[in-house]
Amino acid sequence: MGSPSSLSPPEVPMQLHVVNRKKLLGSFRDHLAISSRNLHGFIVLQGGEEQTRHCTDHIELFRQESYFAYLFGVQEPGFYGAIDIASGDSILFAPRLPADYAVWLGEIKPWSYFKERYMVSSVYYTDEIAKVLHQQYQGPGKPLLYLLHGLNTDSNNFSKPADFEGIGNFETDLNALHPILTECRVLKSALELAVIQFANDISSEAHVEVMRKTKAGMKEYQLESLFLHHTYMYGGCRHCLYTCICATGSNSSVLHYGHAAAPNDRIFEDGDMALLDMGAEYNFYGSDITCSFPVNGKFTDDQALVYNAVLHAHDVVISIMRPGVSWVDMHILAERTILESLKKGNLLLGDVDAMVQERIGAVFIPHGLGHLLGIDTHDPGGYLKGAERPKEPGLKSLRTSRELLEGMVITVEPGCYFIDALLLPAMENAQTSKFFNRNEISRFRGFGGVRIESDVYVSCDGCVNMTKCPRAIKDIEAVMAGAPWPINTTTTPPTSSNT
Amino acid sequence: MGSPSSLSPPEVPMQLHVVNRKKLLGSFRDHLAISSRNLHGFIVLQGGEEQTRHCTDHIELFRQESYFAYLFGVQEPGFYGAIDIASGDSILFAPRLPADYAVWLGEIKPWSYFKERYMVSSVYYTDEIAKVLHQQYQGPGKPLLYLLHGLNTDSNNFSKPADFEGIGNFETDLNALHPILTECRVLKSALELAVIQFANDISSEAHVEVMRKTKAGMKEYQLESLFLHHTYMYGGCRHCLYTCICATGSNSSVLHYGHAAAPNDRIFEDGDMALLDMGAEYNFYGSDITCSFPVNGKFTDDQALVYNAVLHAHDVVISIMRPGVSWVDMHILAERTILESLKKGNLLLGDVDAMVQERIGAVFIPHGLGHLLGIDTHDPGGYLKGAERPKEPGLKSLRTSRELLEGMVITVEPGCYFIDALLLPAMENAQTSKFFNRNEISRFRGFGGVRIESDVYVSCDGCVNMTKCPRAIKDIEAVMAGAPWPINTTTTPPTSSNT
Repeated sequence: MGSPSSLSPPEVPMQLHVVNRKKLLGSFRDHLAISSRNLHGFIVLQGGEEQTRHCTDHIELFRQESYFAYLFGVQEPGFYGAIDIASGDSILFAPRLPADYAVWLGEIKPWSYFKERYMVSSVYYTDEIAKVLHQQYQGPGKPLLYLLHGLNTDSNNFSKPADFEGIGNFETDLNALHPILTECRVLKSALELAVIQFANDISSEAHVEVMRKTKAGMKEYQLESLFLHHTYMYGGCRHCLYTCICATGSNSSVLHYGHAAAPNDRIFEDGDMALLDMGAEYNFYGSDITCSFPVNGKFTDDQALVYNAVLHAHDVVISIMRPGVSWVDMHILAERTILESLKKGNLLLGDVDAMVQERIGAVFIPHGLGHLLGIDTHDPGGYLKGAERPKEPGLKSLRTSRELLEGMVITVEPGCYFIDALLLPAMENAQTSKFFNRNEISRFRGFGGVRIESDVYVSCDGCVNMTKCPRAIKDIEAVMAGAPWPINTTTTPPTSSNT
Repeated sequence: MGSPSSLSPPEVPMQLHVVNRKKLLGSFRDHLAISSRNLHGFIVLQGGEEQTRHCTDHIELFRQESYFAYLFGVQEPGFYGAIDIASGDSILFAPRLPADYAVWLGEIKPWSYFKERYMVSSVYYTDEIAKVLHQQYQGPGKPLLYLLHGLNTDSNNFSKPADFEGIGNFETDLNALHPILTECRVLKSALELAVIQFANDISSEAHVEVMRKTKAGMKEYQLESLFLHHTYMYGGCRHCLYTCICATGSNSSVLHYGHAAAPNDRIFEDGDMALLDMGAEYNFYGSDITCSFPVNGKFTDDQALVYNAVLHAHDVVISIMRPGVSWVDMHILAERTILESLKKGNLLLGDVDAMVQERIGAVFIPHGLGHLLGIDTHDPGGYLKGAERPKEPGLKSLRTSRELLEGMVITVEPGCYFIDALLLPAMENAQTSKFFNRNEISRFRGFGGVRIESDVYVSCDGCVNMTKCPRAIKDIEAVMAGAPWPINTTTTPPTSSNT
């Protein structure tokens, strides 16, 4: 079933989450010290709960809440976790399961199991949280709990602070934890990078597998099925980081295609381009990879023109990325690179600087160049508190406007799309119509779009592309014709170099 | 990639949902007439909404709320639906999408698209519900809305009545709709049966595919991956009806194994039994199928003893099922059949009637014999309002205690498990210890369990097994050794006969 894989799911050391907790504790103590606050109290997080579908007993497959996963690595639902700021002890609170759980859902595991597995200092039941925290507390006055509350700048939702019986008998602080914990997540440790690298390796391999199996006349969702199967069967990835986008033909200009109302159900035809944005998740950490290629395995001149415009932007950005570089500058660089190629291809006319000024780039790439990646597809921390989002077309879609820091993992995903809803108004507009060579562009209506997306780690003096898919046209055509693709199967953390 | 399939996803006529609405309207008008209420007002349902994961912008793949799916067949989130009781007109209310939906999520479809696709009388926006219903209303006084509110007897949750702006200006009735609509769902139409048959066909074929690929040394989740891939790749089934249970060795005695805290992650070994409970969903309707077999393809005598005890119960029940038969009686018949086999196999001692009386059956099969099946795994309607749940061990787990009716689809899923948490107390108990042959039974500790589950349609004079997996030991061994399995690939509605 499927091509054999040279990969197999690695053991992930629970030390990863221990290191995450240590990092938070260090940052948090620093913050308290700077604010002249005492080093007592607890950081308390509530894990996710299983959800049933509407009124039924259908349970959706549970995936842990991301902040909780980051700190504790717990795969089971219904937990709480605490970190004692004074001692550094970490405490897990497990749900008290009814006796018939053993019959229906499995062994009721003892505290010792969770203590050992999750490498915490102690374990209690969730109905003992108030009692235990009061007992452990050594500081003055009522114990203070630091709870998670803050804005997710991608969803505009707020995280929900932990709640439990007896919380009224504690002091609570809703402000300190969220920005510090979020910033911890922004900068990845070597152990985290190794997991993200594996998610990239297995997903890259699966993309290659899908390319090889793609034939005109198939349905888009069959490509999704091939990808899911390869990453689960050989990589042990039960979840994807996000719903697979398998867009062909004109669907490839729908940026977030593939959801329930646009469910990858088109039969694609000879001559179509495919845009496949799919990334598996392993031990909570994920990958986010897009490949674009002609379904028949052979680029036409027009397809090559658009593809190479995007590839060039992708490569130029990666060649420049390093700590201190502004992500807004990278976005504009990608735009400019694409506009230059389109001008060279005779689709655009005039001065590229003027085009950038008039935001013509946003007509062809309305989304941001990339986003932080980790336990969430759009990992939090893209905008520091108080930072303003750019307002210009294109730039306003950026999920971060920060300068790059060593340890960030960020997607580089330039694209070029022919979207009537954007292109037609721009070609009509008195100020911008002059840039468009209508005769040439009309050929591209219905073309869809191209996106090339890699996951890139910012190292101390450059960056590393963690994604290992064929990118050059000759490589894609060779792989689709049956040539082997040399994927490095070792999943050591990437070393620093510009690629 | 995988064995080719002889199946392909059929077109499902939207007429299916039109028929469902007509059936509800007929029943509902009858109910109003009997209660001497006037035939004015509207049935109003609210469809499901997309959910994001915690505070993130991660959107879980949407699957429509089941009652809404039954009546309207709408795959998109955010809809409402109404049926005008006087005219019989059906109205869909679609969400008003922002202009940039076209860039990010796809074409903004016009009302005419939804009207045609979902075969309704008219379409409006969800922000117009109050206005439209007032305009359409021809009766006296304030318009009356019949809303969905009632208990799901499997989850003990209540369905959530539709809510929208302006609902305060209507009279509402929360009692009438739920029991009538639920009873409509209990009895399947020919069009519904055809879809359930396809879900069974592709899932049966996938189970055979999995059996053939099973080898000692694999991981349980690889069997899940094979199943998911086969049903999606060849059957277009994007959802399963429930999380796959892929239990091997002693895990097979955990009835609902496979969830996030027990995630099909064991490596299985030569000599293990596998219990695979997996069923795909197609166009909202599903299948629910369990196969049990030795992972090495060859039953031992002990495995055959337990397997044949269960198979015999499965076959005997199906040979007797017909309208009017009590499901409680069928459960007891299955129990008795299994106990007799275990006695014959020298695991149990004494009088089988006395064992049934002492509820020894519930030690080996703690779950109910089966449940209604349709748009939900545990389709609603198992207990009519006021019906009492049995209280005895085993029987209290029955998801229905009703008499069978023509048109029901119900699972027949006897099992036999060796569960320490149940077996040890029963062997210690003064009243029941006499039934157990300890020396023989001790051999089966750690065996796990066997379940055989088929989806059965109750016809006018008998029943039809819609599931097409190899069941006899010789057939399973032959298929696992590579023999072909003759699956009838036509997906016409089953005809009536006892099998």
